[in-house]
Amino acid sequence: MSRFILLIHCPDTAGIISNVTSFIYSRRGNIVYIDQYVDVENRIFVMRLECEFQDAINLQKLKEEFSEKLALSYQMFWRMYSAENKLKMAIFVSKYDHCLYDILGRYKAGELPVTIPLIISNHKDLGHIAEKFDIPFHHIPVSRTIKADAEKKHLELLSQEKIDFIVLARYMQIIPDGIIKAFPNRIINIHHSFLPAFAGAKPYHSAYKRGVKIIGATSHYVTAELDEGPIIEQDIARISHSHSIKDLILKGRDLEKIVLARAIKLHTDRKTLVYNNKTIIFT
Amino acid sequence: MSRFILLIHCPDTAGIISNVTSFIYSRRGNIVYIDQYVDVENRIFVMRLECEFQDAINLQKLKEEFSEKLALSYQMFWRMYSAENKLKMAIFVSKYDHCLYDILGRYKAGELPVTIPLIISNHKDLGHIAEKFDIPFHHIPVSRTIKADAEKKHLELLSQEKIDFIVLARYMQIIPDGIIKAFPNRIINIHHSFLPAFAGAKPYHSAYKRGVKIIGATSHYVTAELDEGPIIEQDIARISHSHSIKDLILKGRDLEKIVLARAIKLHTDRKTLVYNNKTIIFT
Amino acid sequence: MSRFILLIHCPDTAGIISNVTSFIYSRRGNIVYIDQYVDVENRIFVMRLECEFQDAINLQKLKEEFSEKLALSYQMFWRMYSAENKLKMAIFVSKYDHCLYDILGRYKAGELPVTIPLIISNHKDLGHIAEKFDIPFHHIPVSRTIKADAEKKHLELLSQEKIDFIVLARYMQIIPDGIIKAFPNRIINIHHSFLPAFAGAKPYHSAYKRGVKIIGATSHYVTAELDEGPIIEQDIARISHSHSIKDLILKGRDLEKIVLARAIKLHTDRKTLVYNNKTIIFT
Amino acid sequence: MSRFILLIHCPDTAGIISNVTSFIYSRRGNIVYIDQYVDVENRIFVMRLECEFQDAINLQKLKEEFSEKLALSYQMFWRMYSAENKLKMAIFVSKYDHCLYDILGRYKAGELPVTIPLIISNHKDLGHIAEKFDIPFHHIPVSRTIKADAEKKHLELLSQEKIDFIVLARYMQIIPDGIIKAFPNRIINIHHSFLPAFAGAKPYHSAYKRGVKIIGATSHYVTAELDEGPIIEQDIARISHSHSIKDLILKGRDLEKIVLARAIKLHTDRKTLVYNNKTIIFT
Repeated sequence: MSRFILLIHCPDTAGIISNVTSFIYSRRGNIVYIDQYVDVENRIFVMRLECEFQDAINLQKLKEEFSEKLALSYQMFWRMYSAENKLKMAIFVSKYDHCLYDILGRYKAGELPVTIPLIISNHKDLGHIAEKFDIPFHHIPVSRTIKADAEKKHLELLSQEKIDFIVLARYMQIIPDGIIKAFPNRIINIHHSFLPAFAGAKPYHSAYKRGVKIIGATSHYVTAELDEGPIIEQDIARISHSHSIKDLILKGRDLEKIVLARAIKLHTDRKTLVYNNKTIIFT
Repeated sequence: MSRFILLIHCPDTAGIISNVTSFIYSRRGNIVYIDQYVDVENRIFVMRLECEFQDAINLQKLKEEFSEKLALSYQMFWRMYSAENKLKMAIFVSKYDHCLYDILGRYKAGELPVTIPLIISNHKDLGHIAEKFDIPFHHIPVSRTIKADAEKKHLELLSQEKIDFIVLARYMQIIPDGIIKAFPNRIINIHHSFLPAFAGAKPYHSAYKRGVKIIGATSHYVTAELDEGPIIEQDIARISHSHSIKDLILKGRDLEKIVLARAIKLHTDRKTLVYNNKTIIFT
Repeated sequence: MSRFILLIHCPDTAGIISNVTSFIYSRRGNIVYIDQYVDVENRIFVMRLECEFQDAINLQKLKEEFSEKLALSYQMFWRMYSAENKLKMAIFVSKYDHCLYDILGRYKAGELPVTIPLIISNHKDLGHIAEKFDIPFHHIPVSRTIKADAEKKHLELLSQEKIDFIVLARYMQIIPDGIIKAFPNRIINIHHSFLPAFAGAKPYHSAYKRGVKIIGATSHYVTAELDEGPIIEQDIARISHSHSIKDLILKGRDLEKIVLARAIKLHTDRKTLVYNNKTIIFT
Repeated sequence: MSRFILLIHCPDTAGIISNVTSFIYSRRGNIVYIDQYVDVENRIFVMRLECEFQDAINLQKLKEEFSEKLALSYQMFWRMYSAENKLKMAIFVSKYDHCLYDILGRYKAGELPVTIPLIISNHKDLGHIAEKFDIPFHHIPVSRTIKADAEKKHLELLSQEKIDFIVLARYMQIIPDGIIKAFPNRIINIHHSFLPAFAGAKPYHSAYKRGVKIIGATSHYVTAELDEGPIIEQDIARISHSHSIKDLILKGRDLEKIVLARAIKLHTDRKTLVYNNKTIIFT
């Protein structure tokens, strides 16, 4: 039995659901999940569908037929995946270790359907954690003068290991456009505030200063505009006047790791779809 | 333009989605919402669908065709509603006023797509609120000796006003089987605990005694088993050791009214479907 | 038996708690609640204390003694209240009714230890609600040309009724400096976003456009800087891509009324203390 | 400079705060934190206090004076700790690894002020994790026939390493009374439900069956009554009908590890105090 995931967005018009589901059914496929959404304002149709086939199915052939019979006439942006396929994930870190420990703990515990061929860092500090968990660790320093050089090394490593997507686990460097373009909507960042509040540096300090009663964390895809990419997941924690900045940072660590982990899970389960700088989340 | 809501549950088999959506499409209907779920354990297929027809459509005729062409062969339990149809809601209260104030405030503010032909109470206390909001108020005392009599009066009033569903807004009497049978999955109760914890009387006292750190409220459909009906909505609030029972009761008031209001909204939007003592919530 | 509430902030130094509690104890008072906090960064000591006296106590005399023996030497900003004293609250509204219904429902249900001598509005629309709940309603139009005139009328009414604090229950006008100065940290506003995100007009539209996964509401004291006053309370609700702006507005109504009600409760229980544009909340 | 933590509970009477704070002040100590609570129902006074002394202070002498001058006359249960003192923590595990990974990640990241001299397990499975993090791992099988033997080995190891408290990180064995008595209110368990709902085995299965809309986790001190000990911390997560039991278990993992970590932090910061089977949490 083979299982496929289909993601679509296209101009909204009548008959899409009926025609797509008939396409599956007529090939003896069974739809096990369908979630659809119409963006009325922009007249855009969005759908995620999971289907199973009893018979052996050639994914390449299915894609060609789908393209020819449906995708073209409905002007679809679409992707079709085998549900069994494991994504290759790269992790970028700097000096904070809590997100890295959390991701690697989940990885070893079998929570994440990925392989992790490499961890890249601009500092040496977390190399010992990579070693504990048997993941190759690449120390690539970044500074103003060697920026282009670092980017080149990054792209080589990512290409060499056939990386599908990148997780910035509190990586404290701005990602250059070259990498963003090579991984469109495939770089996941965790920002330690409830965006759009407190974008930029030192959000916990700003939150403390403003006297907010709740702090947050936001995971989003990286785009050329800093902290402006499509949001995948957010969560919050209550604080009070009695919490110091240090307390906020400590409380924030738990938020950051949980929110980032949820975003990674949504991405690897192919439950995200981006358009107009928004992330549709299928549940 | 007319809009319909279709709710289905039936044994799971291949082709249901394809056939139902084709049925709509072939009548020049457009599906604006579809949400589906397969209960793998029990092999049950569940779906909610909203569709729009440009042409004038005869709901009765559509139902007949649907029944003949699809419902019978798939052994469906199904309902089809006009989305414009307003439900008639009865409210039962005793002495607590917070849920009643909240529901009537929402009603007057246009939040609830219902009409409220009557409020029934076993006490006179809240009559003045009904009067403020211009809703007929029926005082029907209930006691061991006149229980059957009260039930008869209730059923007469409910039938006379063609009531569609009942909301127990902290009504402190057990609903007799006769009324439950007349309104299957159409009586909504609010219980002031996080069920199944603290079922029965005085849940805030029990919560206080147990030293829980979180209290809750649960809205559910009423069945013959007390506090055991299918859950529609739940929510919680944090408490601490410093809260007295009185504090819990006060904090609980907000929980109760919000959770009950959400359950009423889900019910009136036809976003609930009950089977196996569980409530499917379509979002 | 009489009960008093004491609120203090002053430069931090050793011995304050010991001396204040001895002051109470030596007058045969019993401390039933004490909560204290030291702002280490600014070296400020903050305390809230509730005490009971078996004997009849002259509040005025107690205040004089406290001032002479303690407040002066420790350079305290301090207030002492009789716990029995009910505050006089004015409500300002425009056209949105949900917060007004909620406040008046709570008021009638006995949840709020206040009297409400008047409701002021720049529109006539909500007069019927004030009437339902038997509260005097004053329609005072505000426009560019008659702004100063309106402010004068507001101040007259507030003074005439000896109003202690003002609640802006979605009042859609900027409060002029004259009123802010007359009610420092005594005007409570509800802003329909998670401040500092989406300050200013149309926050739900901005939230929708940004694609956030969580919306919020913020209650704060009004200062001369719009939406920049000290925050009293915040809360949030999860949303998804499938929610329209209209859905956000509807979901937001519940948030707004709950957050505003909590802020009013904290204020009337004398559990707030403002300094450095932050609100200390005693729990 | 030395910092001490004082925890007290005793019959409520006038003057305790005044006398205790004067005791500190007269020894040139400065109170940096005080939180107090009166259980009115049972007339019990509870307090947590942190104080700093500029001068070198002999903790033993301070304790003796406190005992003589205050503790005896007020019939206090009390403890006084040096804030610098690190607790020795033992971890018990079986086969689930998520809580263990989380605790050890926090430990290595410096979040927990403890040392971890040993991990004890009734299975060999998680030995490799202990090894990764360089913690001695003791495999002590438990079965009906060798129960007493296992208990003896446990107590020997705990005594040998001078263990202060035990964390059951999803340890799937009932703790014998001998160990509970040796560690009163010093064994922290994580139960994978919102207690008192779904006590006992397989709570996720029961939650699924009941159709709850929210699941929870509860951390509590272990007493002789299974799942009935004083609750330290609880939290919840929203679920829907579409979540399978497997999904609940996965979602629950995050809840369990966060709730357990918070409970450990509260315990090691000496912010918990137990009486009448309730845990007072100082914030």
